[in-house]
Amino acid sequence: MTFTHLDAAGHARMVDVTEKSPTVRSATASGMVHCSPAVLDALRDGSVPKGDAFAVARIAGIAGAKKCAELLPLAHVIGVHGATVDLALETDGVRVTATVRTADRTGVEMEAFTAVTVAALALVDMVKGLDKHTWIGEVRLEEKTGGKSGPWRRAER
Amino acid sequence: MTFTHLDAAGHARMVDVTEKSPTVRSATASGMVHCSPAVLDALRDGSVPKGDAFAVARIAGIAGAKKCAELLPLAHVIGVHGATVDLALETDGVRVTATVRTADRTGVEMEAFTAVTVAALALVDMVKGLDKHTWIGEVRLEEKTGGKSGPWRRAER
Amino acid sequence: MTFTHLDAAGHARMVDVTEKSPTVRSATASGMVHCSPAVLDALRDGSVPKGDAFAVARIAGIAGAKKCAELLPLAHVIGVHGATVDLALETDGVRVTATVRTADRTGVEMEAFTAVTVAALALVDMVKGLDKHTWIGEVRLEEKTGGKSGPWRRAER
Amino acid sequence: MTFTHLDAAGHARMVDVTEKSPTVRSATASGMVHCSPAVLDALRDGSVPKGDAFAVARIAGIAGAKKCAELLPLAHVIGVHGATVDLALETDGVRVTATVRTADRTGVEMEAFTAVTVAALALVDMVKGLDKHTWIGEVRLEEKTGGKSGPWRRAER
Amino acid sequence: MTFTHLDAAGHARMVDVTEKSPTVRSATASGMVHCSPAVLDALRDGSVPKGDAFAVARIAGIAGAKKCAELLPLAHVIGVHGATVDLALETDGVRVTATVRTADRTGVEMEAFTAVTVAALALVDMVKGLDKHTWIGEVRLEEKTGGKSGPWRRAER
Amino acid sequence: MTFTHLDAAGHARMVDVTEKSPTVRSATASGMVHCSPAVLDALRDGSVPKGDAFAVARIAGIAGAKKCAELLPLAHVIGVHGATVDLALETDGVRVTATVRTADRTGVEMEAFTAVTVAALALVDMVKGLDKHTWIGEVRLEEKTGGKSGPWRRAER
Repeated sequence: MTFTHLDAAGHARMVDVTEKSPTVRSATASGMVHCSPAVLDALRDGSVPKGDAFAVARIAGIAGAKKCAELLPLAHVIGVHGATVDLALETDGVRVTATVRTADRTGVEMEAFTAVTVAALALVDMVKGLDKHTWIGEVRLEEKTGGKSGPWRRAER
Repeated sequence: MTFTHLDAAGHARMVDVTEKSPTVRSATASGMVHCSPAVLDALRDGSVPKGDAFAVARIAGIAGAKKCAELLPLAHVIGVHGATVDLALETDGVRVTATVRTADRTGVEMEAFTAVTVAALALVDMVKGLDKHTWIGEVRLEEKTGGKSGPWRRAER
Repeated sequence: MTFTHLDAAGHARMVDVTEKSPTVRSATASGMVHCSPAVLDALRDGSVPKGDAFAVARIAGIAGAKKCAELLPLAHVIGVHGATVDLALETDGVRVTATVRTADRTGVEMEAFTAVTVAALALVDMVKGLDKHTWIGEVRLEEKTGGKSGPWRRAER
Repeated sequence: MTFTHLDAAGHARMVDVTEKSPTVRSATASGMVHCSPAVLDALRDGSVPKGDAFAVARIAGIAGAKKCAELLPLAHVIGVHGATVDLALETDGVRVTATVRTADRTGVEMEAFTAVTVAALALVDMVKGLDKHTWIGEVRLEEKTGGKSGPWRRAER
Repeated sequence: MTFTHLDAAGHARMVDVTEKSPTVRSATASGMVHCSPAVLDALRDGSVPKGDAFAVARIAGIAGAKKCAELLPLAHVIGVHGATVDLALETDGVRVTATVRTADRTGVEMEAFTAVTVAALALVDMVKGLDKHTWIGEVRLEEKTGGKSGPWRRAER
Repeated sequence: MTFTHLDAAGHARMVDVTEKSPTVRSATASGMVHCSPAVLDALRDGSVPKGDAFAVARIAGIAGAKKCAELLPLAHVIGVHGATVDLALETDGVRVTATVRTADRTGVEMEAFTAVTVAALALVDMVKGLDKHTWIGEVRLEEKTGGKSGPWRRAER
């Protein structure tokens, strides 16, 4: 196994992907914003007007996908050609799922990861006035398609 | 309890903090990048040259603190007057801890949260070539000081 | 009258405001997104799901206020300490009104102007699939408060 | 007519354009900065040194075209492969016209719109010291070429 | 002498300046864009229309001062309250001089350095079609004022 | 020789490259951060812990390459598909060399120039506490490959 993010002397570099082909690629990541019952009630009752808290998070997540190359020093500048962020209320928090698509030279795993994370941060920002214990967990890659390595899906554990 | 992020009609707005005083405020957040034994070995043996993977994450995290107002739609533009990001190898991953300080009109909880999250994303980006199952968990606010509400510390659970 | 944005030789420069005092200042701007009856119907019926089109515009506008110093070469980097964007359906379009507040050394007229404009652009982006003739008009400063020059209000014409 | 910016549940998403072809596309937008006679005189006499006020606006507009995906939450990150901003003194203000070109997977209407708008904002910023009543109007798409839908031109009204 | 940019373990951190006072501070830096006789002639004759090449560089430099905290990982986010960029034709190139001013908690040496550098890069970009050998040299801090350490001026050598 | 960055009336514009082909292109630039013996000793002895000062500069330089289109008003938004920044201690300073690669429609000379410059600025920022006389010189294009004009290499002088 070669670890392509490091040059001969062990220094960080941006991996050269000029020889890779522009093909359709996608990646899906997910994460969880863990909320107290009080926050969940507020989200459920609309005393934290649900639509907008969710709209802020969703829009921040999509914009976050586009910020990936700015946030991660070694990420490539590539086209972001599609992005969705979905939010779902569960029993102990809000599940965030993001899918990013591109027709460019490298995968969009980190773009999907970033979309989930920024959406989750935005949600924390919306409810931190209700409970500062709100936290983010289980942020992980779910699956990817496209590219030379083909489809990949997270193993159940 | 009033939820100050929403206007009369339930729409998102940036809370007015012009009447708050510029005082010294700090916030500490932490999180965990969960790694497989193979990734931890690589980090420990230096076959993923430790210094740099950690340098990339640390620097990305500090820069991330400064991106908070750009990532979170309702966050204020404030001065960022100090920031540290610490990384520690633990038995099942890398613990990320960030402290942000300001002498401005509002708290820096979200800046600390963002620093942890972006450092964690950068670390995932560094090792995803070794294991795509690397994930981020337990991102939470640890403590804050300053401001009218005074010091706060996460409750043990 | 001296025109402070230009140096001795007529070249652009950022006016020095270091001697101005940090006091509370606000500015309100407004504008109009002119829509065809079909677009207005869609907005009214919810076949362009109203909440979200408006949420996107509102959030883009608030984020836009924070981008002012990046968009306008001679604008100062100042704190943005409060921002609201309101949208109202009128008979021939959507009225956008933004108020920005700061406790910093210079006024926020351009921040309010930018918030209105970016919210309007976002709205155009949301409905351009329905009608490419949607246009933006009447973007103007309504009033400002604070600073040495004191309150100002647009003259009726 | 399907409104492609919204998912099944009415939530904002970035439309997937991965299946569209990278072809040459262009868009032209225009707008008007309405100025008082005093401002127009200053622009005409060079007491607001014409070249530079116009240079600031022109350069801000070109840079603005490149900021489109950052300002509009649902806009795609695409290549910006050509941009011009033209300014013309008319009897009651300054006409701003911008053309943006790309060889990418989606149209550049919003990039042209953004270029016009940011150039106009920059012009307002340059002359607001002379007259705070300066306003922006008639910002609209003039024409577009390229893409599957082919050429489009604004209807006279 | 203590080197404040590094924590106990030798890792990068953003120095805490919360205890420093907001006072008026300024810094001036300069640099040289070395041009071939052909490029200088073009600048002098206006066959590279002088005004605009210089306008682009000047405006890019001012905007560059505002990008300092984004470009330099450990730079603080502070107010930028005044900025000028001057350009002068000399016998073997163009001298760039920038002064930045703030009324904030830390000095603006790096903001002045960044303004000079970005203006110089923009000038290279403008003339690289005429001569790819154009180069940048002698970028240095000239003087600073304000802050606890008081005025400083470059020693003649 | 035509100077393509200016339109008929001598105004700045972004050159249209839509007709150019996406091919692999690279550019290498270099520069020198001139340090006093005291700074060099600190770098050599590790009293400015070498790894990190260099890590900050290297990472800032790579991130800087991606900021090129944002810093230079007339630069195109293109893919950045590979980037390295190398630093070497020499007798009177630190040599910075950057190579940027793309598979897009225009060359990356300015991206390489920007990477060198931002890495150099970051290094100055790291050591300015030791010596404010640290300066940047000899920033120049070394070579480029790809594109219609083919390979180019700096002439010895």
